[in-house]
Amino acid sequence: MQVVPPALERLMSDLTRLPGIGQKTASRLALYLLRRPPAEALNLSASLAELHSSIQLCSRCFAFSENDPCRICEDARRNNRLVCVVEEPGDLLAIEKTGAFRGVYHILHGVLAPMEGIGPDELKIRELFQRVRSQGIEEILIATSSTVPGEATASYLIDHLSGLPVKVTRLACGIPMGMDIKYADEHTLSRAIESRQFIEK
Amino acid sequence: MQVVPPALERLMSDLTRLPGIGQKTASRLALYLLRRPPAEALNLSASLAELHSSIQLCSRCFAFSENDPCRICEDARRNNRLVCVVEEPGDLLAIEKTGAFRGVYHILHGVLAPMEGIGPDELKIRELFQRVRSQGIEEILIATSSTVPGEATASYLIDHLSGLPVKVTRLACGIPMGMDIKYADEHTLSRAIESRQFIEK
Repeated sequence: MQVVPPALERLMSDLTRLPGIGQKTASRLALYLLRRPPAEALNLSASLAELHSSIQLCSRCFAFSENDPCRICEDARRNNRLVCVVEEPGDLLAIEKTGAFRGVYHILHGVLAPMEGIGPDELKIRELFQRVRSQGIEEILIATSSTVPGEATASYLIDHLSGLPVKVTRLACGIPMGMDIKYADEHTLSRAIESRQFIEK
Repeated sequence: MQVVPPALERLMSDLTRLPGIGQKTASRLALYLLRRPPAEALNLSASLAELHSSIQLCSRCFAFSENDPCRICEDARRNNRLVCVVEEPGDLLAIEKTGAFRGVYHILHGVLAPMEGIGPDELKIRELFQRVRSQGIEEILIATSSTVPGEATASYLIDHLSGLPVKVTRLACGIPMGMDIKYADEHTLSRAIESRQFIEK
């Protein structure tokens, strides 16, 4: 017998399509919204309905933006000769939060994954090379993740940028701030030793 | 500078109002939806918009339902002289999944929490006593959680049902199936010993 009202069932099933949300979490969220005043579910509904209609990709850096070009690409105070290459829009937000980067971005929208049919043409890689050739870029800071596909994507970019007149840099890899050395994994530790920094006395 | 498009920011902020969803999860979910075809966000939006309008409380058992009375209360095959009292609609779903209960339900919509101003009048407790008096109920199975407020609510119900001509039972408390005894906490283990069951040989 169907004991869950169909509207509740449908919401739960839509929620389980989201990453990291299983049956139990979906049920908890849906029942929570049902207990709360209708305005809460309606607000969320309106935000979702508006999401795609008011957001587009910046045609220069491919960040999600309400305008094209995006605010970062348009900002005269940012150094548009320094381009940070990231996998996903979420990486841009993480770097922006630090306030440590004053250049502009290039979002690849993924990583190379040949087994899943994701080659350079599926990412914004050609567009990156095009920018390097046409926009007088001085430095490309590759900020893909320290994962196997992230590193593979970085290697591909480094190979193909080597013929172009642009400095290529990579995010430093090492011991996270505040981490006890004995808890660092061996790969991180060996990278930190290889990349050890000279201290001026 | 505002680098997150306002529509994305709004969705993230709506998502963080949900229980168990922090800033990082909200950002991950919102960016996921933005990367997916618009239909996914629009489906979820429609399900949310419809949630409250098509679901009401059953006037007998106070379950969420598209009809009143709900399908369980209306089902002639269910034993309506056996009423299982639960805290929340989610508890009903969990019990229904087992298929082990063929009676009907009464949802309290919360537990007693005097410090937070939740007394018997804030729950569907008066309605439970009313059902016991008027509907010829034979057994009340109290299935509140084994938590401090759940137990307090159970005690309150047991006290107030003692004067009424109805059998009162409680879910058995003991070692979970498949659990090694040495990992059971001492309260559970002592309850399991007190409630030990006689085996017919």
